[in-house]
Parts: sequence; C-alpha cells; structure tokens
Amino acid sequence: MTQTSRRGRRQRSAGKPEIRFPQLERRVLHNRFAPIAALDEEQISLIHDASMELLEQQGIEVMGETGQRVFREAGASVDAAGVVRLERGLVMESIAQAPSRFRVTPRNPDNTLPVGGDVIQFGLVSGPPNVHDAINGRRMGNMADYRRLICLGQFFNVIGFFGNQATAPTDLAPNTRHLDTTLANLTLSDKPFFVPGIGAGRVLDGARLCALARGLTLEQLAESPAVMTNININSPRRLDDTMACGAIQLARLGQPVAVTPFTLMGAMTPATLAGALVQQNAEALFGICLLQLVRPGTPAIYGGFTSNVNMRSGAPAFGTPENSLANMAGGQMARHYGLPHRTSACNASNAVDVQATYETQMALWGAVLGHGNLIYHAAGWLEGGLVASFEKVVTDCEMLQHMSAMLQPVTINRAEIGLEAMQEVGPGGHFFGCAHTRERYREAFYEPFLSDWQNHESWLQAGGLDATRRATAIWQQILATFEPPPLDQGVQEALADYVQRRKEALGTHEPELEPPA
Amino acid sequence: MTQTSRRGRRQRSAGKPEIRFPQLERRVLHNRFAPIAALDEEQISLIHDASMELLEQQGIEVMGETGQRVFREAGASVDAAGVVRLERGLVMESIAQAPSRFRVTPRNPDNTLPVGGDVIQFGLVSGPPNVHDAINGRRMGNMADYRRLICLGQFFNVIGFFGNQATAPTDLAPNTRHLDTTLANLTLSDKPFFVPGIGAGRVLDGARLCALARGLTLEQLAESPAVMTNININSPRRLDDTMACGAIQLARLGQPVAVTPFTLMGAMTPATLAGALVQQNAEALFGICLLQLVRPGTPAIYGGFTSNVNMRSGAPAFGTPENSLANMAGGQMARHYGLPHRTSACNASNAVDVQATYETQMALWGAVLGHGNLIYHAAGWLEGGLVASFEKVVTDCEMLQHMSAMLQPVTINRAEIGLEAMQEVGPGGHFFGCAHTRERYREAFYEPFLSDWQNHESWLQAGGLDATRRATAIWQQILATFEPPPLDQGVQEALADYVQRRKEALGTHEPELEPPA
Repeated sequence: MTQTSRRGRRQRSAGKPEIRFPQLERRVLHNRFAPIAALDEEQISLIHDASMELLEQQGIEVMGETGQRVFREAGASVDAAGVVRLERGLVMESIAQAPSRFRVTPRNPDNTLPVGGDVIQFGLVSGPPNVHDAINGRRMGNMADYRRLICLGQFFNVIGFFGNQATAPTDLAPNTRHLDTTLANLTLSDKPFFVPGIGAGRVLDGARLCALARGLTLEQLAESPAVMTNININSPRRLDDTMACGAIQLARLGQPVAVTPFTLMGAMTPATLAGALVQQNAEALFGICLLQLVRPGTPAIYGGFTSNVNMRSGAPAFGTPENSLANMAGGQMARHYGLPHRTSACNASNAVDVQATYETQMALWGAVLGHGNLIYHAAGWLEGGLVASFEKVVTDCEMLQHMSAMLQPVTINRAEIGLEAMQEVGPGGHFFGCAHTRERYREAFYEPFLSDWQNHESWLQAGGLDATRRATAIWQQILATFEPPPLDQGVQEALADYVQRRKEALGTHEPELEPPA
Repeated sequence: MTQTSRRGRRQRSAGKPEIRFPQLERRVLHNRFAPIAALDEEQISLIHDASMELLEQQGIEVMGETGQRVFREAGASVDAAGVVRLERGLVMESIAQAPSRFRVTPRNPDNTLPVGGDVIQFGLVSGPPNVHDAINGRRMGNMADYRRLICLGQFFNVIGFFGNQATAPTDLAPNTRHLDTTLANLTLSDKPFFVPGIGAGRVLDGARLCALARGLTLEQLAESPAVMTNININSPRRLDDTMACGAIQLARLGQPVAVTPFTLMGAMTPATLAGALVQQNAEALFGICLLQLVRPGTPAIYGGFTSNVNMRSGAPAFGTPENSLANMAGGQMARHYGLPHRTSACNASNAVDVQATYETQMALWGAVLGHGNLIYHAAGWLEGGLVASFEKVVTDCEMLQHMSAMLQPVTINRAEIGLEAMQEVGPGGHFFGCAHTRERYREAFYEPFLSDWQNHESWLQAGGLDATRRATAIWQQILATFEPPPLDQGVQEALADYVQRRKEALGTHEPELEPPA
C-alpha cells in the first residue's frame, strides 16, 4: 500500500490546540477489482429489449411544453396526454452521443472530479428535510446545519463531491435558498457539487456562480464543466416539468446531468428486480436522450436508485439484498451503454446503529463492486433519507476510508515479503523489533480514526463509549477547528454581490421555470 | 429469487405462545459471483515461490517426536532443533492427494456439509474465553452459556456448522470438558461441528461420539467423515506437539482437518501483506502435507487467519482493509492448489456497535468474495475473539441472511418484468394493488428479522430501541422456546454412557497426547 500516506493530517487553528486527525490523503480512487456480474449477458439483453419496448409502446409522460417540444422537434410521437414514445433507433443514436467519461472542475482544480471509467467518487448525503446529532437532537433542516454539513464534507478527504442539497434549509425562503446554499458550497468548500435541478432559474444561478468562482464566462464553462445536477424521473414513467426544465437548462450550458429514476420496487415498479431494472433502464435512457437532443454531447450520468419497499407496510427499505444487487446490475446496464454510473449507499434505520451500518455496507459494497462512478448519499444518510445525521457522516467516512484503503494496489515483491526477516526472527519469535518492521511500521497498515482497539479494561476506563458516541466528539472537534479553504477576496465579493442582486430581483417570486427560448 | 421461501418458520413449544420468526430456510449456499482477484497471476506465483523457498531453506519447527517422525519417515530433513525442511516436490505431491471437495455428515444427514467448490458455509464463533450479553453482562465462559450458544447456532438456519468450541466452559475440568461440549453439540444440535484438536485423546473421543451418534464404526466413519478439527500453526513457523498429535489422530481416522496459521501481520509475520501471505501459505501447506503423509487423501482445508495488529500498541485488529484483502487473497491461494478454503469474519470492537458491524462486514465481504468455503467466527465474535456475544450472534445472523439472500440467482424473464403491469398502472401510478404485485408480494423480497423500517414516530413509540437492544429480546425469545432436534433414546443413552465411562477412566488425568502407534 505504498501509495497511501498514513500520516495524520494536522489541522492548525490560531489560538486553538493543534489536533491530530489521521485521515487518508485526497486521491482519485480507481476501482482495481473487476465488476461483479449480478446479471449474465442474456439477462442484460432481456432488460435492454424490454426497456426499448417500454419506450416504444408505452412511453414516458412528459409534463409541460418545454420537454415535450424537444421530443416533438426530434420527430418523436407526443400524444395528447403528453406521453412521449421513442423509437429505439432514436434512443440509441442519442445516448451514443454522451461521453463515456468527463471531468468536473470546481474552483480548486486539485479537486477536479473525473467521472466514468474505473474512478469511484463518494458524495455527501443530499436531500433530507431533517438533521440529527446526539447533542442537539432531531430537528428540521436549517441553514446553519447546512453549513455545518458542508464543513464536514469539505474536511473529509474521502468525500469527493456534494449532492444536490445536504439538508433543506427550511428557515430560508424557498425561492432563493438555492442562492444561499450555492454560496455556502463555494465559500466553505472547494469541491465539486450538484445544484438543485428544480427549474431553469436555479440551475442557471448555480452555473453563473460557479463561473464567477472560476473567473470564466458561461461559454468557457461549457468547455470545462463546473457544476452538475441530478434529476429524478417520477417513477413510474413521468418526467416533471420542473425537472425537465432544470435538465434542459443545464444541458444547454454543457454541464453534466445525472438522470435517476426513483424506482422503489413494489411501489413505483413491479415487485421484481426484473421489472425495476427494465423500468429504471427505460427511464434513465429517456432522460439522457432528452439531454442529447437538447445539446449533443452533453455529459450525462446513468442514475440508479432501485431498492424495495416493505411489502407489509409500504415503507421504503435500503441496503437490502435486492438494493445491493440493483446497484451491481445498474452498473452493468450503464456500462452496456458506455455511460458513467451514479448509484448510492443508503439505509432505513432510525439510529446510527448496527442496522444503519449493515444496510449501508450492503449498499456500499454493491455500489463499489457494481463500479459505481458517483456513489451518492455515501455519508450521513439516515431514516431512509429523512435525516442527515452528523454522527453518521463520521461513521460513514470511516467506512469509506476502509473501502478506499482496500482498493489500493497490493505490492508483492522480494523486499516486501522479507524472507530475511523471517530468518532473523525464527520459529516462535515476533516481528515487532526487526529491521524489516521498523522500516515499515508507520505506514504499514490503514489507520482508522474511529475504531477503538483497546482492550476491554482500557476501553472501559476511557469511558466505554461505543463508536456512535465517539463519533459525536469527532464532528464537534472538526467543526470547532474548521477553516474554510482560501478564496480570493474579489471572488468572494463578486459571489456575494450576485446573490444579493438576484435576491432583490426575485423578491418573493420563484426563479424562472423554463430556460429562455 | 424463486428459490427462497420467505415465509416465517414457526416455532412451537407446548404451553407457550407460538412465536413468529421469519428466517430463511436451510439451504446449501452456492457462491454465484466470480471471486475477486486481489492478486494477479504473477503475484500468486511470487507468493508460491517464496513460500516454497521458505519451506526448503528455513523450514518449520515441529515440537515433539510424533510429528517429527512422520516427516522423517517421508525422507524430509529434520534437524536437531526439530526444524523440518521440505523439498517443494514433496510438498506439491503430498497436497495433490488432498481432495478438492468432500462432505461432512452429521447425525442429521439433511445438514450434511459440502466443503469446497462454490459452496459457502457460515460457522458460529469459536474459542472465546468469555461471554457477554446485555442482561447478564461480561463473564467467564461456562457450560450453561456454551449450551445456550449451541442452541442459538442450531436455531439459525444460516449457521451451517460449529467451530472448535463456542466458548470455553471454564467451570468444568479442563481434561474432560471436551466430552461435555461434544455431548452438548450432539444432543442440542444436529449440525456438523469441529472438535478441539488438542492432542489425540480429545479428537478420538470426538470421533467415537460422532460414530455412536450415527451408529457407525470408526472404519465406516473414515468412509463418511462426520467430525472435523482445526489446528493452528503457532506462527511464525512452529507446530505445537498437541496440535500435531490431534491432527495426526484425526487424519488416521480419515476425518477432515483445517490447518490455519495464526498470522497477525506485524507481530507473527512481517508487517506486509506480501510477507504474511507467504508465511500463511508455507505454514498451511506444511500442515496439509503432514496430513497427507499420515494418510494420503485425508480431507484437508487451507486455513487463513491473516489480519494485522495496531502497530502503535500491538493490539490485534480485524475487519481492516488488509484483513479483507487477505481473505480474498487466501481464497486465491487455496484455489491455486485445489484446496477448500477456511476463512473468517472477525472484528475487534468492545461493543456490538457500528465498529463491530463495519469491521465484520469488511471481513465478511472479503471472505465471501474470496470464495471462502467455511467462514469461521461468522456469528457472535467480539473483542478480537475474547468474547462470544449473544447479541452479536443475532446481529450477525441477520447479516449472514442478507448475504445469503443476495447470492440467490436473479430471474429475468417476461413474466417477472411485467410490461402488462406497467401498462395497467400507467405513468405516475403505483403498483401496490395490481395483480402482478398481488401474485408476488409475499415472497418478493428478503424479509429481515432484526431491521426496523418503521417511521421515526412509530419507532419511538415502540421504545426507540436500536438494533443491538432489539437483538437482546430476540435471543431471549429463541432460548425460551428452543427445542432440541429429536434424538433416538438409545443413542442418547449410549452417548451419555460413553462420556461417563471416559470421565471415570480419565479421572484427573489429561487425555492421551499421542495417537497410538
């Protein structure tokens, strides 16, 4: 594991005691394992064929004229109910125009996000209306907590990007809160992020702010994407107008869009993995086709969010065996079309406990072995997505570091094997003191920041805290000493100025739904 | 997932209320995924070559005349210090005689254990000197707790076998406690198990009791193995006399032996995965060679127990990225020699918490993806093996059920896809009520027994218990209603009589160390 520096990163803060916090250095993580085949080639073909049949014969309902117009102008059938039916030839020609890999460049180019191929990126939780931590309890999402979550995501090197919205800042006006969250992303962090894809106005604001942060025009931004969005298909087979308008706007700007059908098996799809994968595939390709019709070559991401519901209660479940398989199978389908794959690592537990952990691990291994490129919700997701949990950000980042360390190449050579050291130690001896060990012990093994390997007595004397309770001290420590990454004063003012002017212009009005003609 | 019955197994107990406990039915679990390649072919060759060099030039110390004699008679070099050096030709010829797969038949042939190929079997924790549960706290292992652990392992269908000793019954005399534990295994359970491999007398008692339980002679038992043992190599490179004698005795009886080097990287091996794998490989093959020299064709299992220590404190760690990789790499080496693979799923946490779970999952996925055939310590292991935890038996069995459900074949066909159901439901609808769902909902998805998917309010109203606290009620419920599997009265008396006679014969003496000449 020679590529990994195991040394602790030292965080300094004026006037505060220096704290030591070992974490892996930021790196682009390549998936060196072959992807697991949850499906065989014949099954992939069956799913492909059925999803093409679904698009041709049943189609997808597109709500609103903006999206319908794109399809109509491409020669597709749009009926009176707004249902768009696509010939498979058009679908396949369109999605073939999407690049198989691309890069997203945030204001700090060191944090550039390669998307596609064998690269894995882990993202912070996004979407929850509530937050929870062990000190302040469960509460509605608000801007202060939003900022804290961004700080945590910025701190952990294993987090490569931020999803649409770490929590909903419900204390702010709905029509302008996207300006506050985007400004927070750009000032507290220098990593790439998704902007909310609800209508054209919000994504345009996001793109303009990112262009300002990098000192580029929107035209230059189209050549060097800086911001992404994720749209969901409102499964089964419905594309909302706001999502369509947001996606179309961002596609016109040449920025990447992930299309993620919201396919909970048994509720939004048939109660079978087969049915869900067909529907997911049809819906994802439909959205990607839309992007390519708007602007051929738009970077697009094949999204999957297939899990199941509890068939007794209808409650959503995540990290189930079926969710894990769907993450693997989704990767196979995305690769079948040469598209980058977005997946996720979720759970449905009410506490940061054993259940939250095994469900997250099931989903995470499925995502990693399925060669997910962007693994959404990889840190902080709780309660099926109703809560962003501070403790879970910490426990998940430890798990992501484990995964990251495991994926490093293994070095096998004579020096590493150390036959001479074995000779030196002899039968029944130990290797603690020998030169071979002394040369390597500092960086020999992955060093966790959360795991406690003390013996039982020492652990009890230190308070007998379980990992979730230890996580509380860790996020508190991080936030207490967090310093935002440097940002040019002029840029900072330009961003604040843009936000101020836009807020004044919007007043209490919603941002524009449709992109300008 | 048509092969899986999702219906709850109903446990009845006279005079007690019937309890409903959904668990997967007992089945032989095939690993349908291709094994992960942690090592490439060149790395496998390097490890093989270096381990052969280690056996030829440095050798393994064999303590005691019994083991040394076997090697001497085979023409190997045994020096004055008892160090045995083996030519690679002898090693490769010997291990080639071991079968690549075999079966172990317990008293209930429905629970026959196929070992090798693509079959995965999960085993209960073995070895801990202590036990813990949330009601009675942490205490030294004792016979009552030993019996309770066997009942739990018998109850869970996902547990395929028992390891050497679920906990040490420290309240019983050390020289005869193996008789009590084996009798408990045979009366409270009808699944296969390992007997303690410490000296010839103990394994002979184990084999005789198993023969009695099946109504066979020892000669017949040799044709149809019924009992196993596991011996550790006392790494680095030392084979204890007691282990050698136990292994030799069981090999003479034609029963399977797992040879598992105890290779904690940085302590018992060099602080590198390369060094540990070479040493593990040399030591495991050495032990298997011994078995084949005693009785060619003895069923043998390539064991791996490679994890690392904390290089700051020397404390053992499990479920680390290195442990996970070692589990995968160990499988590659075992398959390289055509041998079944024993691995494990351990952790080093002091509590049944998030850490215990992510460490266990890391090790477990490594073991499953490494195509472990026997996955030892898969339920109940805590504190690096110092404690057998009742709650962890429950949480682990839930995780093993997840893994088992995920490994079932996926069915993709027109009926499962349900394009007609999609037509019936239409855009924006839901699938809860449609015929396609009604036909499938009962067994559509894996149904966990531990996960709680209620919403937050309902979960709070039900007590707000996390998964570990819920596990307490589950093991209590299982033990309160447990009924041992039926056993013929005559067999029961014969077993008890054997134990009684052997206890009288042994008195306060240790059982025989060496097998009879």
